[in-house]
Amino acid sequence: MKCASIVTIGDEILIGQVLDTNSRELARSLEEMGIHVSRMLSVSDNAQDISETLTRELSSHDIVITTGGLGPTKDDITKGVLATLSGSRKMVSHPGQLKKVHEILQSRGLDVLPINIAQADVPETAEVIVNELGTAPIMVFRNIKGGGTLYSLPGVPHEAVGAIPAILEDIRKHQEISSILHRNIMVYGIAESALSERIAPWEDALPGDMHLAYLPNPLTGIRLRLSCYGGNPEEKSRQMEEQLAALKGILGELVYADEDSSLEKELGRLLKEHGLTLSAAESCTGGEIAHLITSVAGSSAYFLGSVTSYAISVKEKVLGVPADTIRLHGVVSSEVAAAMAEGVRKLTGSDYSVATTGLAGPRGDEFNPVGTVWVGVATPRSTYTVKYCYKNDRKRNIERFAASALNFLRLKLISELTY
Amino acid sequence: MKCASIVTIGDEILIGQVLDTNSRELARSLEEMGIHVSRMLSVSDNAQDISETLTRELSSHDIVITTGGLGPTKDDITKGVLATLSGSRKMVSHPGQLKKVHEILQSRGLDVLPINIAQADVPETAEVIVNELGTAPIMVFRNIKGGGTLYSLPGVPHEAVGAIPAILEDIRKHQEISSILHRNIMVYGIAESALSERIAPWEDALPGDMHLAYLPNPLTGIRLRLSCYGGNPEEKSRQMEEQLAALKGILGELVYADEDSSLEKELGRLLKEHGLTLSAAESCTGGEIAHLITSVAGSSAYFLGSVTSYAISVKEKVLGVPADTIRLHGVVSSEVAAAMAEGVRKLTGSDYSVATTGLAGPRGDEFNPVGTVWVGVATPRSTYTVKYCYKNDRKRNIERFAASALNFLRLKLISELTY
Repeated sequence: MKCASIVTIGDEILIGQVLDTNSRELARSLEEMGIHVSRMLSVSDNAQDISETLTRELSSHDIVITTGGLGPTKDDITKGVLATLSGSRKMVSHPGQLKKVHEILQSRGLDVLPINIAQADVPETAEVIVNELGTAPIMVFRNIKGGGTLYSLPGVPHEAVGAIPAILEDIRKHQEISSILHRNIMVYGIAESALSERIAPWEDALPGDMHLAYLPNPLTGIRLRLSCYGGNPEEKSRQMEEQLAALKGILGELVYADEDSSLEKELGRLLKEHGLTLSAAESCTGGEIAHLITSVAGSSAYFLGSVTSYAISVKEKVLGVPADTIRLHGVVSSEVAAAMAEGVRKLTGSDYSVATTGLAGPRGDEFNPVGTVWVGVATPRSTYTVKYCYKNDRKRNIERFAASALNFLRLKLISELTY
Repeated sequence: MKCASIVTIGDEILIGQVLDTNSRELARSLEEMGIHVSRMLSVSDNAQDISETLTRELSSHDIVITTGGLGPTKDDITKGVLATLSGSRKMVSHPGQLKKVHEILQSRGLDVLPINIAQADVPETAEVIVNELGTAPIMVFRNIKGGGTLYSLPGVPHEAVGAIPAILEDIRKHQEISSILHRNIMVYGIAESALSERIAPWEDALPGDMHLAYLPNPLTGIRLRLSCYGGNPEEKSRQMEEQLAALKGILGELVYADEDSSLEKELGRLLKEHGLTLSAAESCTGGEIAHLITSVAGSSAYFLGSVTSYAISVKEKVLGVPADTIRLHGVVSSEVAAAMAEGVRKLTGSDYSVATTGLAGPRGDEFNPVGTVWVGVATPRSTYTVKYCYKNDRKRNIERFAASALNFLRLKLISELTY
């Protein structure tokens, strides 16, 4: 198995100001293609540190991937170190990247300054993959320091993540990779430990060349990834499908997608398929549900809109929640969740709607502890509500409230579409 | 200056399943007390890797801090490696940690198994700081491998973070620490390269013991961090304030906060201070603006609510945008942005409002390219609009649209409050 090291360059990681998400994304992608990441490192914007670290990592890994250290400001000395390590005698300007530098700055209405132009300069030994998303080039150094391949990626997260497909393609083209198959299913509404217990007999009976990984995420639930190493791909693929069919039988409606997906994507798929529209009324989730739904490209086909009713006056005036309902039952109640869902459904004329009212934190109120949420779903046939209780901090609660609401909506939608 | 290395032990980081937040929290704390973190590493649950890595890090750092590798399951072999490295001949049970193991398991209604009891065993060379939040002890090894100090922390994030104060106290007691000062200012509305060029004369004239770092983020702009190493804290602090005053003079209204902050926090502060309320109408940002505003605890004091008007019918019916305005000028237009802002301000009765209409992607329309957004701001005195053009992917555009809208609102708010 090929092995890789991921090196992050930049003081901002080492002083704890920035969380290193690039290494995680790279590690996940490499692992999925069967490359073993045996080390991750962060080093500062210091030429000697970078040089010593890269030399050592190249001596013990087939692939070294760096992110960061390529910005236009003077902190960034990575390119010079790479020139020295790769035996470059000079820097050359890369026409494709230079064009991109001009395009990007012009599209932002900015002047192209000398430091911007210098971003397209690379050591003569580098192969360049044009960075479509930013001004710093993606560089590939082959046989650097006696054998390994070094990929240098920009540090800006969306640029680093955007570079991953091109890097993987390059690795596939130049390295011998042993085969690995993955299949994902998405599960929501069960804790990891309970899930593990429920599927233990199935998991224990898996063939020796198959392995199940639990990949939990507060917004999307648990991704179950079945992997199979080596063997005939067609035959193994068929065997994996058989195993997954059995697993889905055990888990029933806890499974919401048969591939790597999200609740909002899956909801979008269902709504689109049946020509239905959706709206939302949010109190404690404060826009997060609308944000999740509209993060899916093409969501304008089914999502009409939403009302964030943070103030009681907006709940009453815009959504038409009766003042008496709030007075009698409290803002965080089944009755208010139902009235909000019905109100926004009527206001927007959507087929379905979802609503939340709860306490994300930092404090609860006199009736409900922090972490309580009521979710309402209004449909052409009926209105449903459910209460969930969590115990996390504000940010985490907003995420869990939104995901729980989308899942409750999904279950009601499926049950009405099925019967 | 003392230097430190932070080592994370565990396969879950290296396969990209888990994001390493512990190292960030540790780094931030160490940096604040003037300890230079010169390296972060992640290694797998492999005895040889752990041993080699720790030996190397101890040879070049005063302090090495590990997190992870201390769970009760068989993956976790860190304790054995630490015993060997520190020359321990036996393990001893620590009474304080053993008591904690019993307390924690009993409070969860669980039996205390032999593997739980073994968690309180430590190499005889270790000093123990009792982990109040979990079953694995916090261990301190002094003069390990010839001089350095090694701190071994549990990997569970809230336990690792919970251990930080005790670790810092121990470091303060046992090491001589030189002083470091940091000051942040927040900047929005200028590219990093243009900012760098604009402040170059100021930056070049900084005293040798001061250093400026650029920390960009699409949602919060650029954090400029001025650091000063050594010297008399009071005098240095005064000198830093002088430097920052000059910097703020150069940057003017591009500076939005005099400390580590965000646009939504700063807006909240301004609105609260002046007893003003806010609402939002979102098309292309789809709830992101409301989500950002309500992510600030206490935002219910000034944020009344918002309408996400994805469908034209919602723009017309709920926000009262005249059908003729949309027909004449198009949905993505100054006129519609203004009408949306005015509409939601009237609907919610807020003092101020902000609205967005644009094309986040993946496609533009016949009139505007993808990445175009019109922002409207309605106030007690007037209505303002502005157009921004970006070119990123959908997720990125939504973030930039929302941040630009918040910044435009901030500028209008300040100008009306000032005059």
